[in-house]
Amino acid sequence: MNYNNLTKKELLDVKETLISKYEDIKTKKLNLDMSRGKPNKEQLDISAKLFQNIDCYLNRIGDDNFDLGNYGLLSGIVEAKKLFGELLDNSIENIIIGGNSSLNLMYDMFAQLMLFGNQDSKKPWIREEKVKFICPAPGYDRHFAICEKFNIEMITVDINEKGPNMDQVEELVKNDETIKGIWCVPLYSNPDGYSYDSDTVKRLAKMVTKATDFRIFWDNAYLVHHLYSNKQDKIDNILTTCEKYNNDNRVYIFASTSKISFPGAGISAISTSKDNVANILGRMKLQTIGYDKLNMLRHVIAFKNKAGIKIHMENLADIIRPKFEIVLNTLAKEIEPLDIARWNKPLGGYFISFYSMNGTAKEIVSLCKNAGVKLTSAGATYPYRRDPKNSNIRIAPTYPTNIELKSAMDVFVICVQLATVKKILGEY
Amino acid sequence: MNYNNLTKKELLDVKETLISKYEDIKTKKLNLDMSRGKPNKEQLDISAKLFQNIDCYLNRIGDDNFDLGNYGLLSGIVEAKKLFGELLDNSIENIIIGGNSSLNLMYDMFAQLMLFGNQDSKKPWIREEKVKFICPAPGYDRHFAICEKFNIEMITVDINEKGPNMDQVEELVKNDETIKGIWCVPLYSNPDGYSYDSDTVKRLAKMVTKATDFRIFWDNAYLVHHLYSNKQDKIDNILTTCEKYNNDNRVYIFASTSKISFPGAGISAISTSKDNVANILGRMKLQTIGYDKLNMLRHVIAFKNKAGIKIHMENLADIIRPKFEIVLNTLAKEIEPLDIARWNKPLGGYFISFYSMNGTAKEIVSLCKNAGVKLTSAGATYPYRRDPKNSNIRIAPTYPTNIELKSAMDVFVICVQLATVKKILGEY
Repeated sequence: MNYNNLTKKELLDVKETLISKYEDIKTKKLNLDMSRGKPNKEQLDISAKLFQNIDCYLNRIGDDNFDLGNYGLLSGIVEAKKLFGELLDNSIENIIIGGNSSLNLMYDMFAQLMLFGNQDSKKPWIREEKVKFICPAPGYDRHFAICEKFNIEMITVDINEKGPNMDQVEELVKNDETIKGIWCVPLYSNPDGYSYDSDTVKRLAKMVTKATDFRIFWDNAYLVHHLYSNKQDKIDNILTTCEKYNNDNRVYIFASTSKISFPGAGISAISTSKDNVANILGRMKLQTIGYDKLNMLRHVIAFKNKAGIKIHMENLADIIRPKFEIVLNTLAKEIEPLDIARWNKPLGGYFISFYSMNGTAKEIVSLCKNAGVKLTSAGATYPYRRDPKNSNIRIAPTYPTNIELKSAMDVFVICVQLATVKKILGEY
Repeated sequence: MNYNNLTKKELLDVKETLISKYEDIKTKKLNLDMSRGKPNKEQLDISAKLFQNIDCYLNRIGDDNFDLGNYGLLSGIVEAKKLFGELLDNSIENIIIGGNSSLNLMYDMFAQLMLFGNQDSKKPWIREEKVKFICPAPGYDRHFAICEKFNIEMITVDINEKGPNMDQVEELVKNDETIKGIWCVPLYSNPDGYSYDSDTVKRLAKMVTKATDFRIFWDNAYLVHHLYSNKQDKIDNILTTCEKYNNDNRVYIFASTSKISFPGAGISAISTSKDNVANILGRMKLQTIGYDKLNMLRHVIAFKNKAGIKIHMENLADIIRPKFEIVLNTLAKEIEPLDIARWNKPLGGYFISFYSMNGTAKEIVSLCKNAGVKLTSAGATYPYRRDPKNSNIRIAPTYPTNIELKSAMDVFVICVQLATVKKILGEY
């Protein structure tokens, strides 16, 4: 039953059936949440078992030969640098370990750039007439929120399965000195699950920017967050690629264990060039005497190395893969035959990006909300919360239980169908 | 042997003896450190024993009925708010729990004020022609370093056993709109160990400020850091005092467990007015999804409440009290009879503030350094590292072992004597 081939009478009949189903659902008073990319309890329990018996208190002298309970080691403990160095393929001198939030590191980087600029800036960004940032969209709402807070104008560029539209990006940065950077989630992008191909990484590293202090914010949030062990995306090393084109300082790479160990209690890292590390530590030494070193030690004891993290992530993937399958199977069964939407089938990350018929996303999210299913706000994945096509909906399948997720998806597909039929009927 | 009564001949004899002693010391190749207010290993081991067997991983649902391993609870967990609420005498709604560093909270507060101002600001501080801050001195070098980084002009005012010279402070803030705040370490001030009396707290709360968005940075770093159980300083509640004079939003109070649990792995807090909390969270919600909640839980399990912290701090005081006594006894024996210096005898905190003969502090620190004893740089306790009298030396007795401290103090008194004799002789 392809909706596009139905007569008005048939559509009205479909609508009537859907409304009846929808009203039924509402009586169930559901309270389900597919809005945020949060790990579920089962995942956290796996980490909890790894962490529970670690004693980092009595034995707290690490490889730095330093009492990690005390002040000091501003850039983090060497064991944690080794771990992230292995994960991010960078030497330990060029890694800084932070607190429990890479978002915090990113915000602080922006605050620093606004207040002081970086070593390649002519002046602090706040002293510029205008600062703009390129935002491949759909993207991560919290990235865009930071730009908005700092009054940085966001320029949307398209993103596809290879990464941001590089023709657009190159053209923009070549001519506009006020464009100071670009947000990137290079592996399993939020929400689309796209991974940048080699050509995209190369062009980002190589491109000519009018701004001397241009920076790529490379949020490698899903660096080891594969869903399958036999089919995985892989991205090139942006840092060494930048070096190759003599743009050594172009990129700040961010990562964290938020979705490896605990969102509430992980560790984070910046990986960048030698000069950028010096520039960042020059600010950081005034901001803190050092982040939580015992938690760094705890993480290294729990995971040991990249291989340890790989095994752990496979255990987590075993839990979340079925959740992705519930979403994808429900969509395949209930939406695909209707030919009214498209969606991605990512190999990793935390989201499924759903593109409804143009003009219907807000209505779908609203219908879901009124039926007790919370989704990320429509538009949230775009700068200024404005989805020009009112079409993208970010589905976050990880947090609910499988039973909850099935119920939520049953509601979702009814809402998609109802909103679409009403749209085709010209009712809004 | 009062140096002031000696003849030149006698002084030269004294000098010769001292130089001989000093050269002897140098042959020992000492490597001792009295420069920073760091807890020692014994203290940290006491905390370590309290923390080592806590499981906050498998049992991580707290009183918020929330999985504390996951994202969320931006302002911190309710148990930690209760703990700091009790310590700081404020209601839990007006408390925000941070990461492992209150310095970080202070720096971030300044960054926020520079970039956005607060709810009472006409514009972001960075958009003002000039911003000034009052810095009672001697004070904490890291406070002054933050101001310097943000290009905030520091105005030094005197501090005495009752707190900052309030005549000076009132006069300054009444007439100058560019004066936006004051740094305070109200209990056992760094380095003098002074505690603000009721009249000082009242005048700070009551005073008329020309700047509408004036703020007191109330760094209550030593809030439970008493050396003696029978003789303790106590300060009035600045928040309620401010409320009394309708200056509810005047003060940001900062505290941490850095010198209670672990400098490298504690928790921190802001206590302030309802409006200030809202203003701070408005920025913080873009900066992070929340600080480390499992470490908050861990701290509450370890200490339980204010009474638990009191007992713990008494255990720590038993370790550091003898260190203060080593310093004070050595000074009493070796320096007091010479009538060439004065120093404080604090009831808490982390420092002894030593005032050498005017013009000799740098020489003393330099002599110590060359004999293998590291002290805080002379001048570090003043804005722009300029001690107008070149007299104040901050002695931090907590970190070395008692044996090391004795050796270090033996060197220190020789260096004080030598520098003073040379000064009296007009040699520099």
